[in-house]
Amino acid sequence: MITPLLSSWNEGAAKSAILDFVAQISTEGSPHHVPPADRVAVFDNDGTLWCEQPMQAQIYFALDRLKTLEATDPGLKHRQPFKAFLEHDLKTIRSLGKQAVFEMAFTTHAGVTEQEFDCIARDWLSYARNPRLGRLFVDSAYRPQIELMGYLRGHGFKTFIVSGGGIDLIRAFAEEAYGIAREQVIGSSVKTRMDIQEDAVDLFKLGELNSFDDREAKVENIGLHIGRRPILAFGNSDGDLPMLRYVKAGSGPRLALLLHHDDADREFAYDREFKLSPLAEALDRAPQYGITVVSMRRDWAAVFSPTR
Amino acid sequence: MITPLLSSWNEGAAKSAILDFVAQISTEGSPHHVPPADRVAVFDNDGTLWCEQPMQAQIYFALDRLKTLEATDPGLKHRQPFKAFLEHDLKTIRSLGKQAVFEMAFTTHAGVTEQEFDCIARDWLSYARNPRLGRLFVDSAYRPQIELMGYLRGHGFKTFIVSGGGIDLIRAFAEEAYGIAREQVIGSSVKTRMDIQEDAVDLFKLGELNSFDDREAKVENIGLHIGRRPILAFGNSDGDLPMLRYVKAGSGPRLALLLHHDDADREFAYDREFKLSPLAEALDRAPQYGITVVSMRRDWAAVFSPTR
Repeated sequence: MITPLLSSWNEGAAKSAILDFVAQISTEGSPHHVPPADRVAVFDNDGTLWCEQPMQAQIYFALDRLKTLEATDPGLKHRQPFKAFLEHDLKTIRSLGKQAVFEMAFTTHAGVTEQEFDCIARDWLSYARNPRLGRLFVDSAYRPQIELMGYLRGHGFKTFIVSGGGIDLIRAFAEEAYGIAREQVIGSSVKTRMDIQEDAVDLFKLGELNSFDDREAKVENIGLHIGRRPILAFGNSDGDLPMLRYVKAGSGPRLALLLHHDDADREFAYDREFKLSPLAEALDRAPQYGITVVSMRRDWAAVFSPTR
Repeated sequence: MITPLLSSWNEGAAKSAILDFVAQISTEGSPHHVPPADRVAVFDNDGTLWCEQPMQAQIYFALDRLKTLEATDPGLKHRQPFKAFLEHDLKTIRSLGKQAVFEMAFTTHAGVTEQEFDCIARDWLSYARNPRLGRLFVDSAYRPQIELMGYLRGHGFKTFIVSGGGIDLIRAFAEEAYGIAREQVIGSSVKTRMDIQEDAVDLFKLGELNSFDDREAKVENIGLHIGRRPILAFGNSDGDLPMLRYVKAGSGPRLALLLHHDDADREFAYDREFKLSPLAEALDRAPQYGITVVSMRRDWAAVFSPTR
C-alpha cells in the first residue's frame, strides 16, 4: 500500500505515537487490530486543520456577508453586535465569547438556498485572505495535518471534521483542501426548510440555530452523524476536550491528540488568553486523560504548504 | 469492474430505467457523466428495503421493549398508547397514525447508552420474526434491493438510508443486511446527552425527540447529514414524496423510484389504506413528477433471499 509519508512531522514523541497507533490497529493478527469499518478519525477544524488567528475564518466570512446584507438593511450598522463586526472592532467581538459570536455569524448564513450559499462561500474562499498571514484562508491549512489525514485514509480510516464552524462553509472547501467529502463534515448548523415553487424544490437556510457544535455537542453530533465511537481524535482547544475524552474512553487502543500553538515565528503562540477558543483545561489535564500534546514548534517540520 | 447483476429484477421498464441511468452517469465522456463524489443514492427503509407489514419492525421492537420496561413500571399497561401496544391491539395502534406511533416507539429507546441500545437491538434482531412471514426481520430484506445497492456501489455510488425509523435500530443491522455503514444511515432520532462518570464517557439516549425523519424532514436531514442533492432516490410511500421530488428537481440526469406493493402472493398488496404509511399522492402524481413506479409483482423475479 502506498501512503503519504509524514514528511512534515519531525521525529519525536508525537510522530511516534501516531505511527505506533496506526501500526497497532492496522496489523492483521495484532491483538489490537481494529476492523476497517471502525477506523474513524475526527478532526476539529479551526486551529487544528487551519489557522484561526487573529479570528476564525468563519467570522471574517460573516463580516463580509454583513457588508452585503447592510446594502439592503442600512440600520444594521447601528445595532450591536453587527456594529462591532462592520467596524472590525476585534476587541468588542472577542469580548462576546465564542458561542455568541459564532451564533451571530450563522445568522448571516440564512435566507438563501443551500446551493446559493455554496456559491457565495466558494466565491468568498477564492479570494479571501487571512489578514496576518497574507495567504488565502484555504492556503492556511496545515500541511502536516493534510499529510496525516492522507496517511490515515491510506490505512483504511474514514476522516471526519467535527467543528464549531458552520457546516456549509466548511463543506465548500473541505473536499479540495483536505480530501474530506461533504458528507464527512459535521459542524454547527442552522435549521432549514424545504420549499417547493413549481418544479423547483430547494432547501432554504433559516435564521434559527439547529446545533452549536462545540464541547459536549461535538460528541452528541458524532453519535447522530457517525453512530460509532471514533478511535482517533485531534483538537486544539477546551471545546474539543469532551470529544477527546469520549474517544479515549472507548475500549481498545485509542489516540487523542491536542495541537498546542507555541510557534510565534511560523504561526502564532497562544492558549489560555484566546477568548474566542481558549486552551487551558485540556492542556492542564492532558497527562491525566492520556492526551498526546503536539507542539507546533517542536513536532512540525513545516506548517503551511507553499502558496499558489 | 465486477458488479453484481440485477438477477432478481425482471426485464422491463423499471430495470431498463435503472440500467440506462447508471450507464449514462458513469460513462466517461458522456454529456451526462456525474463525478463519483456526486453519486449519492438514498433509500427509504420500511417497505422499500424490507417488509413493513403488518406493522413496521420498529413497532414490534418497541412493543417488546415495553414488556421489559413494564417490569419496572407496572402502571404502564393501564395507560394509552402503551396499553394498546402491550395488548397487541393493532387496530388502535394503526388508528393513531405514523408519527404518533413512531414517536411513542422512540420513547422506548431512551434511558440507555448508545452502546447498551446497540446490544439490545442486536439481540432482538437475532431472534425477532415478522409474524406474517415467519422470517427473521433481518431476513425480510428485499433481495432485488440488496442487488441494486451493490450494483450502484459497484458504479461508484455511496448508498444512504433515509428512514422514518429510529436511526440506531437501523444501524444495528444495516451493515450486515445491506452493506450500508452506520454513518450512512439517516433516520428519526432522540436527543442524547454526553455523560461523564469517572473514566466512563458515554452518550445517553433521552426521551425527547430530536427529529422525526419523514416527509420534508427527510430532505432537511439529507441537507444536514449529506450536504449534497442525491441523484437517485427510492421510496414506497407518500412520506418519501418530498425526497423523490427533491432529487428529481436537481439538474442533470436523476432517477426517482417508487415501489408499489401489489404482490399479495409473494408479499403484500396495499397502498392507500395502510394508515401507518399510506401510498396515495405519490402514486397518483408519479407520471407528473417523472417518478418510475416499480411493481413488485411484475418487476421483481424474487422478493426475498432464501432463509438461513
